[in-house]
Amino acid sequence: MSRIKVEKNVYNRNQELAEENRRRFQQAGAYVVNMISSPGSGKTSLIERLAPRCVAAGRRLFVIEGDVETERDADRLRRLGVEAVQIQTHGACHLDAAAVARALAGAELAGVDLLIIENVGNLICPTGFDLGEQLRIVVASTAEGDDKPLKYPAAYHKADVCILNKMDLLAWVDFDVERFEAAARRANAQLQLFRTSCRTGEGIDAWCDWLMQRRA
Amino acid sequence: MSRIKVEKNVYNRNQELAEENRRRFQQAGAYVVNMISSPGSGKTSLIERLAPRCVAAGRRLFVIEGDVETERDADRLRRLGVEAVQIQTHGACHLDAAAVARALAGAELAGVDLLIIENVGNLICPTGFDLGEQLRIVVASTAEGDDKPLKYPAAYHKADVCILNKMDLLAWVDFDVERFEAAARRANAQLQLFRTSCRTGEGIDAWCDWLMQRRA
Repeated sequence: MSRIKVEKNVYNRNQELAEENRRRFQQAGAYVVNMISSPGSGKTSLIERLAPRCVAAGRRLFVIEGDVETERDADRLRRLGVEAVQIQTHGACHLDAAAVARALAGAELAGVDLLIIENVGNLICPTGFDLGEQLRIVVASTAEGDDKPLKYPAAYHKADVCILNKMDLLAWVDFDVERFEAAARRANAQLQLFRTSCRTGEGIDAWCDWLMQRRA
Repeated sequence: MSRIKVEKNVYNRNQELAEENRRRFQQAGAYVVNMISSPGSGKTSLIERLAPRCVAAGRRLFVIEGDVETERDADRLRRLGVEAVQIQTHGACHLDAAAVARALAGAELAGVDLLIIENVGNLICPTGFDLGEQLRIVVASTAEGDDKPLKYPAAYHKADVCILNKMDLLAWVDFDVERFEAAARRANAQLQLFRTSCRTGEGIDAWCDWLMQRRA
């Protein structure tokens, strides 16, 4: 079997498992979000800011953390009282639907309002793998350069929401927010855009309120 | 053929082509560096700072730029008078030895002192692919968080040099340099560490001087 044929089989098999995941999530009433970004753009920090707002709104949050190695991100969230499971891929560059299904095998999803899957830090490989989510968010940071939607268009093309994080660093980096957002919109005219800072709290309410309403 | 067997064949074939590249580089007298990092950590900026120092030292620099899409990085360097070729992978998450050989098919390497290959922005997939380089550099930025060597150990384990860039942002981010360097050294005790800022120039001379000496 050729390499391309093997890859095609991998994608087809993933899509079947993603649909199985989606059916399970919908039966449980869980709204599922897949977060994709470069390493260190602030995915876990955004979830940390979301967690107390879920508690305040009476919403049950459950998080799957994907990393190549370590349990660090799940531990960060558990310290805030968030239910979190960690997937360590041990070298693999993305989560797939099978990994998500295995991570949730023993979990009780009934009563979970919001399930957030934080993907492995990688702007390329995760974009091709549907996990069964209803919403996909791509996160960028102002420290990464405003040309990232041009260089990694698939991440933006396949997302529903784009969060530009670390707005607090704007004074210290060469980053043109308008140029970034224009490039993101060129990749995907339907993108819902947010600007946030987990340090100052800028934009966090707007993003969390939007997500809660979308979930409802 | 199973997926694992196909992957093993891909790695074996890459290793053969990497050895061919290495022989060609050595015959031409070119010292070859493979730079790996997350998107936006400053690889191209570091090369921009290196370029005038190569001119001053009478060293001929040649750069291969790897990106998923766009010719932007090669254009940035050409504006500084650097010879640069761009590889657009159109979706692929890493460079491999075959892509490097194709990009250099028509190039005259005799007289090139330093050939820098800037890999695709990705801390995971490029680590498994030898390009025929003599030196591998992993670049991190202070905006990415000091836990990256723990989460992406292979990138550090397989590198010879680690450059911590964007030192100028240190006052504005939660980043412990000692903790980062200890984690990097845990992944690889032999790592040569540098701290740089392309904005202030901090550490640029030290890194460039070291590289020139190593090349000599």
